[in-house]
Amino acid sequence: MAETDRSELRKAAEQSFIEKKQILADQINYYPNKIKEKGFKTINRFRDYYPESNRLMDLGVVFAQEDLESVAEAMQDKTPWAVVSGLNPSGPLHFGHKIIFDNLLWLQKQGADIYIPITNDETYVVDKAKSLGESRRIAYEEVIPSIIAMGFDPKKTHIFVDSDYPQIYNLAMKFSKHLSNNKINGVFGFGNKRKEDGDDLKEEKENPGTYFYRGAIQQAQILLPQIKEFGGPKPTIIPVGIDQYPYILLARDVAEKAKLIPPAALFLTFADGLDGKGKMSASRRESAIFLNDEPQVAAKKIKTAYTGGSVSAEFQREHGGVPEICPIYQLRTYNFEKDKHVAEDCKNGQILCGDCKRITIEQVIDFLVEHQAKLPEARDRINEFLLTTPITSHLD
Amino acid sequence: MAETDRSELRKAAEQSFIEKKQILADQINYYPNKIKEKGFKTINRFRDYYPESNRLMDLGVVFAQEDLESVAEAMQDKTPWAVVSGLNPSGPLHFGHKIIFDNLLWLQKQGADIYIPITNDETYVVDKAKSLGESRRIAYEEVIPSIIAMGFDPKKTHIFVDSDYPQIYNLAMKFSKHLSNNKINGVFGFGNKRKEDGDDLKEEKENPGTYFYRGAIQQAQILLPQIKEFGGPKPTIIPVGIDQYPYILLARDVAEKAKLIPPAALFLTFADGLDGKGKMSASRRESAIFLNDEPQVAAKKIKTAYTGGSVSAEFQREHGGVPEICPIYQLRTYNFEKDKHVAEDCKNGQILCGDCKRITIEQVIDFLVEHQAKLPEARDRINEFLLTTPITSHLD
Repeated sequence: MAETDRSELRKAAEQSFIEKKQILADQINYYPNKIKEKGFKTINRFRDYYPESNRLMDLGVVFAQEDLESVAEAMQDKTPWAVVSGLNPSGPLHFGHKIIFDNLLWLQKQGADIYIPITNDETYVVDKAKSLGESRRIAYEEVIPSIIAMGFDPKKTHIFVDSDYPQIYNLAMKFSKHLSNNKINGVFGFGNKRKEDGDDLKEEKENPGTYFYRGAIQQAQILLPQIKEFGGPKPTIIPVGIDQYPYILLARDVAEKAKLIPPAALFLTFADGLDGKGKMSASRRESAIFLNDEPQVAAKKIKTAYTGGSVSAEFQREHGGVPEICPIYQLRTYNFEKDKHVAEDCKNGQILCGDCKRITIEQVIDFLVEHQAKLPEARDRINEFLLTTPITSHLD
Repeated sequence: MAETDRSELRKAAEQSFIEKKQILADQINYYPNKIKEKGFKTINRFRDYYPESNRLMDLGVVFAQEDLESVAEAMQDKTPWAVVSGLNPSGPLHFGHKIIFDNLLWLQKQGADIYIPITNDETYVVDKAKSLGESRRIAYEEVIPSIIAMGFDPKKTHIFVDSDYPQIYNLAMKFSKHLSNNKINGVFGFGNKRKEDGDDLKEEKENPGTYFYRGAIQQAQILLPQIKEFGGPKPTIIPVGIDQYPYILLARDVAEKAKLIPPAALFLTFADGLDGKGKMSASRRESAIFLNDEPQVAAKKIKTAYTGGSVSAEFQREHGGVPEICPIYQLRTYNFEKDKHVAEDCKNGQILCGDCKRITIEQVIDFLVEHQAKLPEARDRINEFLLTTPITSHLD
């Protein structure tokens, strides 16, 4: 390499390093500020009950909680408690979802009954599917088999697709009397579209289906484990992204009015997309590795992924990388890596992106091959996991 | 009677007569003005197809229509067409409902399939019942047996209670994408409570259940006969009070977007209450004769009812009564009387209120005794009338 080329490369590496450090500086206080702003508590007390390792808590992916105290007693006494974690079936699952399910698996291991509403009605009303039938097909063909293949216990896992369990709407109608249009408009910004960046609500389709979904169906799903058919009232945890905190507040309010236990919440960060353009999301195919991706497709996505590293190996050996903003670092450590020194090694310049990507590709491919091999059997077992209990307590 | 007493009585009679004539003058243009304002058409063409007598059309109870042309061909060709007429089960049926069902019976005789959604969800969300269970009980114990006892043909009558046919909500979610919150807020005045007299919307409970009911469920009910499970698309008539015209407009709009046939409407006037304080309504018990009233209770309500007559028999013989504003006149002629000269005889002073009430009591008691005798058998036949067809077309 000519001396001028080398000098150009170094300049580019320096500039990119400064930029990445700046991204980190911009992001690093986002979640701590949210915690402060909303008054959330840490998860330390929760971890004390369950000293068993939880990778996602160690890494700060599960980073805060609301009212976990309400569940503590049931956890310790081994009396029933539940977790509700809904899923929008707009496409196949990706590694952003896998983290959520890993956390659910851990909670199930600690004793929770897991309820998983597959919200194909939401997918449809917010225009992420052309029909309820399309989102229903995705639910049964892609989403539910992948969930089952993750290793959930059928005795403690209750999955339902909204359109096939329409009794959930009866509950929504029942609970709707504890809510007001004023409150829902305020919480979700209906009739008052917000334009702030990063605010998902700005894309909300304002039709009566979305309104009722946000304003009542979601509350019914959250409170479902607490109706008498499922042995409620009982303590419940809802794992959510911080943008979904308004649902929790609404549901806590409704629960109180309906003489149920206000549900607790666990807050999770989102995984970054491989394209370096935001969170991992099915709407940007290159941002995500899907659980049904062919191994070579996944490998290619990782190879071409954005990282926290440098264009110059020499520069990176001297200055290190920025793992906190690196999707490959996240993919590797959130999902697979037992070695706790990855971040340190990256920052020290001891491991470069090429090697890190190679290791990650191996880990991802191993997982995908194993996961995909389980899908045929998982498809045959769907009925073991489906919730079919008739609901009558809306008539109380 | 002393001369001064007689003079006092005459003065009171005169004053009351002037007042009743004024009420008539205030009311007489209400429906004609509405017809003009909304551009409704008369029902004459409809009657030409079916010269068979229809008491309610003769008397102007069924007084206008919207787009009946869309049904005309099916009527003449004897191809399928439907009528949808929902009912809010807040209490037992009364003679205000009986008129609606008499009209449905006539439509069924002309070939219509009759769909009757019993909207216990609406009853609950608008606070006319303490629970969905209470309004459901009223539906099965009071409302449906009374409908069956009216003489409907089970092969052409399809009744369902909303909370027991929750698949209707799937259709509501499907159709909700053809609606917007803006439109619904505009039509129903949500978020903008209106205070005008006589406007039912002012009492609307603003919760997401009412919102979704008005904005989507009601549309799903209106369009139900047109889904493929029931052989649709097909022409449909919705008989409604004029205050429900907004629902028709919304449903016509949704139908067009969903490639169904915009439903036609028949407009009915409301029967006046026996208490002279407004329309016959279950919320003022004394205003209505219920189909489950004991004969002597009904007789007493009629005896003490407000009329279009005078406090002085002498005055009434001279000046006549005001049958147009008389609930007894309505009760007698809308339901029973074949003699077409009742109004004339009243206006001429040839028949006084005492005699008219005596005749009406006999007619009402005959009906009640016969109707109530049919209820035990009707209760045993409920299943013949219930709609249980699984809905799948929301998945299209």
